[in-house]
Amino acid sequence: MKIFITLLTFFLSINVFSQNDKVMIEKIFDTSMNFSNSYQLLDYLSNEIGGRLSGSLNADRAVKWGQEELNKIGFDKVWLQKLMVPKWVRGPKEFALIETQPGVTFNVDVCALGGSVATPPVGIKANVIEVKSFEELKNLGKNKIDGKIVFFNRPMQSNLVSTFQAYGKAVNQRTNGAVEAVKYGAIGVIVRSMSLRLDDYPHTGTMNYGNLPPSKKIPAAAISTNAAEKLSDLLIINPNLKFLLRQQCKQLKDVVSYNVIAEIKGSEYPNEIILIGGHLDSWDLGDGSHDDGAGIVQSMDLLNIFNKINYTPKRTIRIVLFMNEENGTRGAKKYFEVAKKNNLNHIFALESDAGGFTPRGFSFTSNESNFKMIQSWKKIFEPYLINSFELGGSGADIALLKTDYNVLAGLRPDSQRYFDYHHTSIDTFDAINKRELELGTFAMTSLVYLFDKYGIIK
Amino acid sequence: MKIFITLLTFFLSINVFSQNDKVMIEKIFDTSMNFSNSYQLLDYLSNEIGGRLSGSLNADRAVKWGQEELNKIGFDKVWLQKLMVPKWVRGPKEFALIETQPGVTFNVDVCALGGSVATPPVGIKANVIEVKSFEELKNLGKNKIDGKIVFFNRPMQSNLVSTFQAYGKAVNQRTNGAVEAVKYGAIGVIVRSMSLRLDDYPHTGTMNYGNLPPSKKIPAAAISTNAAEKLSDLLIINPNLKFLLRQQCKQLKDVVSYNVIAEIKGSEYPNEIILIGGHLDSWDLGDGSHDDGAGIVQSMDLLNIFNKINYTPKRTIRIVLFMNEENGTRGAKKYFEVAKKNNLNHIFALESDAGGFTPRGFSFTSNESNFKMIQSWKKIFEPYLINSFELGGSGADIALLKTDYNVLAGLRPDSQRYFDYHHTSIDTFDAINKRELELGTFAMTSLVYLFDKYGIIK
Repeated sequence: MKIFITLLTFFLSINVFSQNDKVMIEKIFDTSMNFSNSYQLLDYLSNEIGGRLSGSLNADRAVKWGQEELNKIGFDKVWLQKLMVPKWVRGPKEFALIETQPGVTFNVDVCALGGSVATPPVGIKANVIEVKSFEELKNLGKNKIDGKIVFFNRPMQSNLVSTFQAYGKAVNQRTNGAVEAVKYGAIGVIVRSMSLRLDDYPHTGTMNYGNLPPSKKIPAAAISTNAAEKLSDLLIINPNLKFLLRQQCKQLKDVVSYNVIAEIKGSEYPNEIILIGGHLDSWDLGDGSHDDGAGIVQSMDLLNIFNKINYTPKRTIRIVLFMNEENGTRGAKKYFEVAKKNNLNHIFALESDAGGFTPRGFSFTSNESNFKMIQSWKKIFEPYLINSFELGGSGADIALLKTDYNVLAGLRPDSQRYFDYHHTSIDTFDAINKRELELGTFAMTSLVYLFDKYGIIK
Repeated sequence: MKIFITLLTFFLSINVFSQNDKVMIEKIFDTSMNFSNSYQLLDYLSNEIGGRLSGSLNADRAVKWGQEELNKIGFDKVWLQKLMVPKWVRGPKEFALIETQPGVTFNVDVCALGGSVATPPVGIKANVIEVKSFEELKNLGKNKIDGKIVFFNRPMQSNLVSTFQAYGKAVNQRTNGAVEAVKYGAIGVIVRSMSLRLDDYPHTGTMNYGNLPPSKKIPAAAISTNAAEKLSDLLIINPNLKFLLRQQCKQLKDVVSYNVIAEIKGSEYPNEIILIGGHLDSWDLGDGSHDDGAGIVQSMDLLNIFNKINYTPKRTIRIVLFMNEENGTRGAKKYFEVAKKNNLNHIFALESDAGGFTPRGFSFTSNESNFKMIQSWKKIFEPYLINSFELGGSGADIALLKTDYNVLAGLRPDSQRYFDYHHTSIDTFDAINKRELELGTFAMTSLVYLFDKYGIIK
C-alpha cells in the first residue's frame, strides 16, 4: 500500500500550475501569433543594420537601436553596460585556389576564421595534408607536416538528431586546429566548414591560438563543404597538389562597446531577477538573423506581449542584449562581474541562441526539486508541440549566473536547418519564417510567465 | 488495492517492444541519415520531371519513372493499376488587374483554381464585393451581388499551432466559393490564397461546381495574399473599383493514367498487407517537391532501407504511388475498389502527404487496443524528437481502406512552413532540406518495421 500512496502523492504533487495559467498561456499564444513585433524588429536589425561583429560600426548601431527600441516598450529603465571588446576585421574577400599542376587551378570558396592572422600579401602556397583528427595529426608528426597546409576534413556526423551535438564533435578542428597543427610545423590550416550540407558557403567562427607568441601564429580559414570534398578527391589523384590561400584579416586593439539592459521592477519580489537574453553581436558574413537576431527580438518582444495581455510581473524582469558572444563572451563576463559585485539574485535566466526555428522545448540547468516543478509545466506546452524539457546546458551568455538553487534555461528550436546558415553569408532575414520565430517568442514568454508567477524552490 | 493493481498492470502491459527493436531503430536511423536515396530520388522527380498534374505528359513521365525506380529496388513485383483521371489544363498565364478609375490600374497576381472554367477571351470585368464567409454572402443577397465578382477574403487563422487546422477552416472559400456565389448572381470569384504568409504567390487547388450545369459555371481564381490585402484596402477607398480577370483554363475529357504499385511478399504472413504511400500527381505551378514528391520518395525508399539493414519483412509490404490525389482522388478510389474485390487484408496503411519537413509524429485512425500498443512505441521514437502520437485522420489516399480493426496513419511533419509552398510556383526542390526529408523516411520506415514485426490486435 505504501508504494501506491507514494505513486498517488507523486501524481498529485507535481502539477504546479492552475487552470488559469492555461488560459494565460492561450492568451500569450494568441498575442504572440497575432500581435507580436518580433518579425518587424528582426527585419530592421537584419536589413537596416545587418552583420554586426563586435567592435564594428554596425555593432554600435545595433546597440543604439536596441536601446531605442527597448525604451519604446515601456521598461522602468534601459541602460548601457560599458565593456571592452576585441575588434577583428576581415578585410577584403579572401582568395584560395587548388593548383593540381602548374597552370591548372580551381578556385575554391574560403573565409578567414575569426581571430586568424593574415597571410602575407601574396598569400601562402604549399602542399596540403588532409587529416580527420588531432590524433592523426600527431601520428603524422613533424616529418610529414612541416611546411605544409593542414586540411582538417572531419565532417559533422549526419546520424545525430541534434545538429548541435554533431557540431560539438567537429568544432575543435576550427577552434584549435591552428594551435595543434603549428606544433608540427604547419604554415596554415584550412578547416571543413561546420555544416551538414554540401554547398558553397564557407562558415566562419571563432578560433584561438592559445599562448602562441605572435610570430608563431599561422593563418586559418574555413573551406566550403563542396570545396572540401573536391580538395579531398583531388588529393587522392595528386597528393602533391598545391593550395594557395590569401587573406588580409587583422586583430586590432580592443574597443569600447556595450551590453544593452532593460528592466521592469517586480511588483511583489523586486529583488528576484528573471533574466531573458540573447546576443546582439553577430558574425560579419550574413546579417545574423538566426545567430542571434532571432534571440534578440524574441527577448525584446517579451514585455510587449506582457503589456498586451495586461500582465504585471511580480518579479523583476531584465532583458539583456549581450555583446560579443561570438568572439570573446566579454559581455557575459562583464554582466556577471557587475551582478556579483552587486549581489544580484537571478532566480531564473533564459537564453535564446539556437536560431529562429520552430521551438521544440527547453534545456534546463536546475536542481531536482525545481526540475520537478518545471516538468509539471510540460503539460501546458504540449498542445503547442513544445514538449522537449531536458536537463542540459543553457547558453554561453548566462552560464556564469549559475548558483546552487537558481534555474537556467535555453530555448531549443528544431536544429535541422541551423547549420545550413550558421556563420555564413546566407544567415539572412529571408531564412526566417515568421510563424516559427513567433512560436519561439510565445514559448519564452510563457516560460517566463510561469517562473514569474511561481518563482523557484530554494 | 484494486486501483494500485490496475495501475501496475497498466504500467507493465503497455510496452510492446524489446531492446532489440531499439537497436533495429537505431540502425534504421543511421541508414536513413547516411545512406538514404530519398533526396536523390526527389531531385530527379522534381528537377527532371517537375510539376505533374493528372493527365499531363509529366504525370505519364512520373508513372514511368516510379515504375523503373521501384523495379531497381528489388520488389517481388511492380505493376501499374490503370484508371481514368480528369484532365484540366491551365492554358496561358492568367491575367488580372484592379482598375480604381479609368486608366488607373494595378496588376495583381492570380491563378485559376483547378477545375475552374475560363473567362471569355477578353476576360470578365466587374465590380467587386468582398466577403469573409458564406453567411455574409447570403446576407448580402442577390441585390448586392448580382453581376459582380465575389472576393472571398477570410484569412487563415494565425493562432492555431497546426496550420492544417487553419487551412481546414478557410478552404471552403476555395472549394465551394463559386457554387455559393453563383446562387446570388456572381459572375466570377476570386479567393484569397490559402497561406499564412503575406507574399506574391497565388495558391491553386481544387474547386468544384456541385451540380451546376455548364452554362451556370463561373470562373474562379486565387489571388496572392499581398494582392488580397491591396484589393481589400482599395475597396475601402473606392467600393466601385473594377476587377478584370482573364484565364483560359479548360476541362478536357478524362484520360488514362495509373497508380504505381510495388510489392514484396511477407515471409510469414503474406496475406497481411502493410501499405505505404503518397501521391504521384501534383499541381502544375511548382514541381511538387513538398506536395507530394516528399511522400513519394519516402515511401519508395523504405525497402531500400530494409535491404540495407538486411531486414526481411514478415508481412507483405506494398508501396503505392497514388495518381490524382489533387483533383479527384481517382487513384485512391480505384485502388480501394480492386482491393475490395480481391478481399485484400490491409492491416496497416501509412501515408505521407504533409510535406518533407522535420517529422513531429504520426496521426492514427485506430481502435483502442491497437492504439495502446502504438502509444507504447512512442518511447522508441522520443530520442529522435518524434513524439506526437495522436488519434486523428490519416490521409486522403488511404482513408477508404479503414476497417473495424486495422490501423491507418499519416506522417505529421512540422507544419509551420507547409502553406508557404502549398500549390504554388515555389513548391520546388530548393525548399527541401535533406535532413528533414530523411528524418521523415526514418520515421516511416521505423513505424512500418514495428507494425511488420508485431502486426495488429484483431
